[in-house]
This record gives sequence, structure tokens and C-alpha cells, in this order.
Amino acid sequence: MSAPRRPVPSLDLVAPVLAGKIAAIARLLSRAELGADEVMAALEEIYRHTGNAHIVGITGVPGSGKSSLLAQLVTRLRAVGRRVGIIAVDPSSPFSGGSILGDRIRMNELSDDPAVFIRSMATRGSLGGLARATLDAADILDAAGYDPVVIETVGVGQDEVEIVQAAHSTVVVSAPGLGDDIQAVKAGVLEIADIHVVSKCDRADANRTITDLKNMLGMAINTGATNTGATAWQLPVVATSAHSGEGIDELVAQIDAHRVFLRETGELRERQVRIAHRRLLKAAQELLRDEFKRHQEEGERGMAQTIAAMIAREVHPQTAARELIGRTRKEIER
Amino acid sequence: MSAPRRPVPSLDLVAPVLAGKIAAIARLLSRAELGADEVMAALEEIYRHTGNAHIVGITGVPGSGKSSLLAQLVTRLRAVGRRVGIIAVDPSSPFSGGSILGDRIRMNELSDDPAVFIRSMATRGSLGGLARATLDAADILDAAGYDPVVIETVGVGQDEVEIVQAAHSTVVVSAPGLGDDIQAVKAGVLEIADIHVVSKCDRADANRTITDLKNMLGMAINTGATNTGATAWQLPVVATSAHSGEGIDELVAQIDAHRVFLRETGELRERQVRIAHRRLLKAAQELLRDEFKRHQEEGERGMAQTIAAMIAREVHPQTAARELIGRTRKEIER
Repeated sequence: MSAPRRPVPSLDLVAPVLAGKIAAIARLLSRAELGADEVMAALEEIYRHTGNAHIVGITGVPGSGKSSLLAQLVTRLRAVGRRVGIIAVDPSSPFSGGSILGDRIRMNELSDDPAVFIRSMATRGSLGGLARATLDAADILDAAGYDPVVIETVGVGQDEVEIVQAAHSTVVVSAPGLGDDIQAVKAGVLEIADIHVVSKCDRADANRTITDLKNMLGMAINTGATNTGATAWQLPVVATSAHSGEGIDELVAQIDAHRVFLRETGELRERQVRIAHRRLLKAAQELLRDEFKRHQEEGERGMAQTIAAMIAREVHPQTAARELIGRTRKEIER
Repeated sequence: MSAPRRPVPSLDLVAPVLAGKIAAIARLLSRAELGADEVMAALEEIYRHTGNAHIVGITGVPGSGKSSLLAQLVTRLRAVGRRVGIIAVDPSSPFSGGSILGDRIRMNELSDDPAVFIRSMATRGSLGGLARATLDAADILDAAGYDPVVIETVGVGQDEVEIVQAAHSTVVVSAPGLGDDIQAVKAGVLEIADIHVVSKCDRADANRTITDLKNMLGMAINTGATNTGATAWQLPVVATSAHSGEGIDELVAQIDAHRVFLRETGELRERQVRIAHRRLLKAAQELLRDEFKRHQEEGERGMAQTIAAMIAREVHPQTAARELIGRTRKEIER
């Protein structure tokens, strides 16, 4: 008896998503990004079917060449029959519609391939919900059978670091010619790298970047460690070139080696715990924030009074927050 | 009957802080930064004496010259008898001990002046608590009679943008020679600027930066708007030079004009509401996070079970978060 134009309930999209239907995936992704209450039941169902994909984070400052690298990486993964999901959080990425024309064309070629699903996420403006939306999107692509699911972010900002921390394997891309500093340090992502890439290795100054990075990591230069069967992970530094294609095979090999390493050493479980813990905290913070917003939008007296009391310096923000959490909890538990 | 070496309770530091005693201020700042429970009563008392200082945010990417600008700004404010509090959140700032030798020497000269109080905040590693710690520090300097209180941050990252949003007047510094993009856009701080500064205006390429910025802001070039008595705030673009001292007087005048503007148009109240609202939310999120941490540290069964259920894909993070908030609330309300 439903009206003819009534939209399909999100829950009805789950089965076609699990079957890998592109249109359903795109639709559920859009709804998840909007974050309507109605989509939650579908995301819960989707979540039950996740945990199969290897989640790879690729991060690097704008200009580090990570988008060109990603394009080559995807092409290589396709060549060996992998279905690749890409979530682009970097606003300057050609995957997100930014950057130079050449890259964008290359991306379009990829996106015509049904075994490559590219999704770009809005960034500025929705910073609070960005991490949630990105992880929901990764869930959907994971459940739809894409593996790996690659999340591309520009590696600065708390939210973006959070996103990368949700990956099983994190690739940090540095490039020569972006200044003397070690970019990974500057961006605060050095400690979360599992694999380092120095892009544009055809450039004359690339060796300096590689050397600096290796020194920084306390590695002997030319170790040539290949991460086969090691019990501790040797942080590799992979030199790549978008021009010659150099290093892409090695990068694929290192990503796979890291996946094997995680599985064989029990590190995977530790990482899953860390990821789940962070995601739980984030979700709780968001729930709380949404409740507060609702209070404010409804012109709830309590909220306005609290803020007036704060401005009058009658109550400290932390004390006010404590009271507010008490008042808010009932609605959160609904 | 207290032991001879028992530390002074933080609450006893409040009176000397309000009297402007340097040692007490430094001590309370350190304790506030550590965030021990014991300091909360003191911060509540301090908070009652805040609201007098004009809080000025200065932000700009590393290399934008904002630290040199700040040094000159402080010198100028001292010359007219103002007591200036500085909180440096930028890790590359000479105020935080970073950057080049020359700047650091200049900063040391300033810091020998008892009417200038400089405090640097730790950044990476304590990102979660950084906004809170910075605002507590601003409270302490405000209550101690410093006016203005200047908060210097590198304008990237969610937490740092949050910090700048706690200022009454925000100065965004751009510099020529840092690439073609409008830096304020890249850093995501364009929309929060009250005053734009283009530093290093003695450089040949500075005009290009000024023109780009003005075009971007949709201003006619050479408007020469001086913000005296206007009902709408004209976003000024001030060209400054650390070499010649050019523009510093204008910057001081614009900051003062913005302060007057806020007061006379009622915009101040709106901004206070926005600041209080953000701070309230942040405090609530932190309380919640601290509670979660405590749960985890105590090896609380519920938390470990929740995470295990998430990893087993039995429960969605958002559903788990909802349950957790319910379980946690009693302790939050303690």
C-alpha cells in the first residue's frame, strides 16, 4: 500500500549492496553520509558483514603525489583481479574532483571500471562527522566485497589522523621538493606509518628525501629488508615514480606483506581492538554532540540558561558540562 | 598540622594570581595544563574573574611570519602600557622554543618584561586536551589582568581551529612566497578571520599575495576602509613588514577597532554565546572521554566486552556507544 514514489527504505538496499550492485552501493553511501536516523538500521546490518576487506590508509600533504600514486596502485591491483574501493577524503585529490586535469582524466578511466568504486567525501564544513561518515563508507564498500578499501586523506588535522588510524595498513607519502622538513613529522603522521613512500623518485633531490627519512627512522641505508616472515615489522621506505612506474610493484608487495604480518603475529587483533575502541569513543562523542545540537535548535531553555550563566561567569564550562550530560542522558538512552 | 613540604593547594594560588604575582600564575598554569582534579576548584574561582581581557587569536601556517609579527605587536602594545599575555600553541613558534635563533632572542627580551607573560602549550600528543588547556590558560592570564591575551596557533587541525574560534578577534597571517594558493583557504581559516595580515610586504611578490587575498575577499583594491564607526565589519587586509615595522601600528588600530565594533554592535554578545557554546560542548566531550579512559584503564569488563562484540561484528559502534553512555553517566554525574 506504499505510495508509488516513496523512497526505498535503506534496509532494503542492504541485500543489493551485499550482492555488489553499484547503484545500491552509491545510494546507501549517500544516505549514510547524510546520516539520517533511518539509515542506522541498514548500517547495523551492513556492519555485520564487514571485517573482510583490508583497509589501507594513504596519507600525505597536498603536492606529495599520493593521488597519482594511488591511481597507479589501483591500476596494478586491478591487473591482478582485485576489486578496489576508494574513499577520497583529501579535498585536493583528483578523486575528489580537485587537482590537475591529467590526473582527473586518469581517475575517470578508473571510475568507468565497475570493479573500482570511488567515493569522495566532503571535508571542511562537516569536520565533526567526517570520521564517522568515512568509516560508514568503508563499511559499505567492505560489505560489498571490495578488497582492499583504500582511504586517501591529506595527513593533517585531528579528524583526518583519526580516519587514517582506522586503517589496518597506513601508507605515508612524502615527496622531494616540498621543503627541508620531514613532511611526515610536520603532519604528525610519522608514528602511524606502516609503510613510507617517497614519490617522484625520478627527481634529482629525491635521494636526499629518502636519506633523511631513513635516517629519521633509524634505519641503515640500503637495508633492503623485504618484510618476508619477520616477527617485527621493518618500516619500509619505498621509492616510487609516477613517470616510470618504479616502485609500485614493491608497494603492492609491502602492503600485502603488512597484511600477512598483521595476521600472523597477532598484531591484527591488537589493531582491531584499537580501531574499535577509537570508533566507539568517536561515536559516543558524536551522539552527545548531536543531542546538544538538538537541544539548542529547539531553543531548549536549559541550554540557553547554561550559556548565559557561563557568560556571566557564574558557572565554569566544565561544571556546566557535567550538569548538561546529566540532563541529556535520558534522550541519549532513548 | 600539614606536613612542611605539602604543596600549596591550587585554590590558595587564586588570590596571588588575581594580584598578578608571576610565580603564582606560572604555577597555576602548570597545574591547569596537567589537569589534575585538585585544580578544578581553583579554575572555577578564576573563571569568575575572567571576561575582562580582549582575546586575540593569531594564526597562520609555519613560515607565514606570524611569530615575528607577534613580537612586534607585543613591543608596540608594551609601548602604550598594555600588559600582554601570550599563549603559543604553534610548535614551530619561537615563543614555544622553536624557530630561528634571532627570533628566540627577541622573545627572550620580551619575556624579561614582567608585563609580558609568555606561555607555550604542548601540542602533538595532547591534542585532545589542548583546546581545554589553552582556554584554561587564557582564563588565568585574563583573571591576572593581562589584556589583551594573544593566542598564537598554526592554523591547521580541528583542535587548533577550535582554539582560534575562542578568540574575540582573529588575525590570519599570510605570507608571499609560500605557493600560489591562498594560505588561509588551505588552512581552513579564511572564514574565521576578522583581520587579514600579509607579512613580509617588503618582498617583491607581496603585492600579488595582497591582490589575490583582496580579490578573494571580494574587496575593491585600495578601498582604504578604516573600520571607524562602520555598522558592518570591513575585513581589513593589513600589509606588514618585520624589517621596516610597516603596518604594525595599523594592525594595533584594527584590533582595537574590532574590539570597539564588537562592543558597539552587539556582536560581542553573539560571539560570547558562540564561544561559550563551543566550550561547553568541548568540556562535555572531554568529560565523557576521560570517563571512557578510566573504564579502560581499570580493565572494566563492560568496555572490553563491548569492543570484542564490535570486532565480532555483533554490535555496531553507534549502538555500542549508546549503551556505553548509559552505563557511564552515573560516574559522570558523581
